[in-house]
Amino acid sequence: MRVLTTPDTELAGHLLRAPLAIDEQALDAIERGADRVLADIGIRFQDADTIDALRTTGAAVTGDIVRLDGPELRRLIRENAPASFTLRARNSDRDTLIGGGAPVFAPIYGAPDVLLEHGGRVKGSRALYHHLVAEAHAAPALSNTGQMICVMDDVTEPSRPLEMLLAHLKFSDKPFMGNIASPAAAAGVIALTRTALARPDALGECNLLHLLNGTPPLTYWENPLKCLRVITENGEANMISSYMMMGATGPATAAGALIQGYAEVLAGLALTQIWRPGAPVVMGILGWPFDMQKMVPGFGDPISQSIQFHAAALGRRLGIPVRADGAVTSAKVDDGQAGAEGGRILAAASASGADFVLHAAGWLEQGRCVSIEKLRRDAAAISWATLGHNEPCEPPQPLDTAIEAELLGRISAVA
Amino acid sequence: MRVLTTPDTELAGHLLRAPLAIDEQALDAIERGADRVLADIGIRFQDADTIDALRTTGAAVTGDIVRLDGPELRRLIRENAPASFTLRARNSDRDTLIGGGAPVFAPIYGAPDVLLEHGGRVKGSRALYHHLVAEAHAAPALSNTGQMICVMDDVTEPSRPLEMLLAHLKFSDKPFMGNIASPAAAAGVIALTRTALARPDALGECNLLHLLNGTPPLTYWENPLKCLRVITENGEANMISSYMMMGATGPATAAGALIQGYAEVLAGLALTQIWRPGAPVVMGILGWPFDMQKMVPGFGDPISQSIQFHAAALGRRLGIPVRADGAVTSAKVDDGQAGAEGGRILAAASASGADFVLHAAGWLEQGRCVSIEKLRRDAAAISWATLGHNEPCEPPQPLDTAIEAELLGRISAVA
Repeated sequence: MRVLTTPDTELAGHLLRAPLAIDEQALDAIERGADRVLADIGIRFQDADTIDALRTTGAAVTGDIVRLDGPELRRLIRENAPASFTLRARNSDRDTLIGGGAPVFAPIYGAPDVLLEHGGRVKGSRALYHHLVAEAHAAPALSNTGQMICVMDDVTEPSRPLEMLLAHLKFSDKPFMGNIASPAAAAGVIALTRTALARPDALGECNLLHLLNGTPPLTYWENPLKCLRVITENGEANMISSYMMMGATGPATAAGALIQGYAEVLAGLALTQIWRPGAPVVMGILGWPFDMQKMVPGFGDPISQSIQFHAAALGRRLGIPVRADGAVTSAKVDDGQAGAEGGRILAAASASGADFVLHAAGWLEQGRCVSIEKLRRDAAAISWATLGHNEPCEPPQPLDTAIEAELLGRISAVA
Repeated sequence: MRVLTTPDTELAGHLLRAPLAIDEQALDAIERGADRVLADIGIRFQDADTIDALRTTGAAVTGDIVRLDGPELRRLIRENAPASFTLRARNSDRDTLIGGGAPVFAPIYGAPDVLLEHGGRVKGSRALYHHLVAEAHAAPALSNTGQMICVMDDVTEPSRPLEMLLAHLKFSDKPFMGNIASPAAAAGVIALTRTALARPDALGECNLLHLLNGTPPLTYWENPLKCLRVITENGEANMISSYMMMGATGPATAAGALIQGYAEVLAGLALTQIWRPGAPVVMGILGWPFDMQKMVPGFGDPISQSIQFHAAALGRRLGIPVRADGAVTSAKVDDGQAGAEGGRILAAASASGADFVLHAAGWLEQGRCVSIEKLRRDAAAISWATLGHNEPCEPPQPLDTAIEAELLGRISAVA
């Protein structure tokens, strides 16, 4: 907000954020519901090492279904996971504290298509990716340039993780997100980022945050589980989310979705603390109603705001940072629908007290398209709201040529 | 929200609303600031009867400036004003409880112009007013058809209060708002509404809610003060608001605006309880940044969300219902800007726990224009969000022909 001075210094700082107090009985009921789901139904883990690790929590294993003890999972998280952590940048002036009070905003993640400035729609490409990272870097409110802002359709799949890494390092010196294409890709990007940032290990600090989703309902696939372990053991951060299509991969009601989603993320969050007590994590429970006629999720539906308010309160109970989504919408162009849906969801993200807002800028059409103009407009609105200005960030410090050469060499070896 | 059933009955009802807990120290500081403004600067009241009445609170009078005792004003409000009251309709099935947990939504109030369905923009008229009341009636989420949805430019000023009354009575049987053109107009509309509703006086119930604004900074004009007294003494309700243009008629900072606005509404709210202890009232503090280059307020600016969150908490401290604004915007058409601004403000209104949301539907261009299509779209979005459907309301019960004849007779006598 634009509150830079106040007539009463006692008020300074109070006006920036309105933390939500949700009815504690509702949260108790969600906890009890999730505990029942964990104990009676269990979670499917498609990875043998994970299942072995979970046995230590008193879990009962039947094939790949693990029945879990909710209170024990919460104890593991509460006693070990940090309330906040620093996500570092190549330029240490741009380090961000996740869970420090002010939310971090990152652009859309995962768009196959790009809407160009004068309306043409094309597949994502390397050149567009470079442009999008530069746009995200310039936007003062986006303190994280994210990951996979668009898909690089003109680049072979194996080289995309390194191509994206190079783009985030070269066209920005802000923090960004890690890669989860495979455990090897995650580990490779982690190692190269460590080299590029050239900063010593420090308690409470890491270099990369990874988007690590379960696969609702009540399942974790093999790749995310193996990535989660690699990321955690390397000291990097995970954002463990349940991203439910309500009525399809999650219950149709908000209460049901919260219960399923909380059960799912409790399992994933506890796993990080088993692999490495104290591992930095962020929690997200997100639910979007699924339209069975159109076979698409209804991004922007107000029920999602209620889920976000409760998810944030559940995260605060666990004592860990919480994720939200930003200006998401089902609209195909940046029209009244896009504005109204995105505006409502973004306002709820902010009011919920979220610490990391993904998809904050550029999102169109259920996330299938990133609009360059909308990315700029969304980011400008957030900049005005949170900083009181929209002055572009200084250009990034030049990337060390040896780092760039090494990355280019590895990319040509993979491609 | 669309939560009609839950898998856990303990949760039912909890998910509909997320009440905000604002830092109590911030509210204390606003109270102290407002008390200082009331005691040291005072409020200008342009009405001798009002000034005499305020002397009973220990006020110090200098000309038309009255220095007031904030704690005493709060005591008057807390000890006398009801936490909720029923606003009655011609059809008693459509009565609404103001302050009962679920917000009441009403359309835009005060638009000179109307944007027609296919883009033409015209002055408001009697025929358009009839159409707009019918639209508001049909919208299931709008449980109040408001007042002055547009200006009737083709009707003489003296007959507008009765013309609007007739429209709200004939084209709807929902509750609506009273008129404040003059004390005589207010009293006339109150008396005729009582006749039309034909319902006996009942404790905790009234027929009309009136939009009663101070004139910031720190002033109440003669007409609203005389209206306030007439309305209150007739047992009808007032919505006492401070509607500030921040940087013009109020401080530029949120903290300053809250302090000035709270001082203003404390005076107006206490006045209602002096004229008639127990009088039903609603409180509103609204601030919009004023653009000194364009000389227009910036509707949709996010600082207003922060003001709304704090205003709602201050209202809860007083134990009375609170107002908010809905989908307001500075945009001239229902585009991405209109959506984003209105969506954010509406989401904040809802999350703040507001009891009455004015300007919830149809607003364009700083409120200078009501769009028929946007009214329908805004109302549809709220209907889906709050009711889970957008089925049009049943047509109104026919208005008693004797009532209609009497109103038409009075209108021709005035015109």
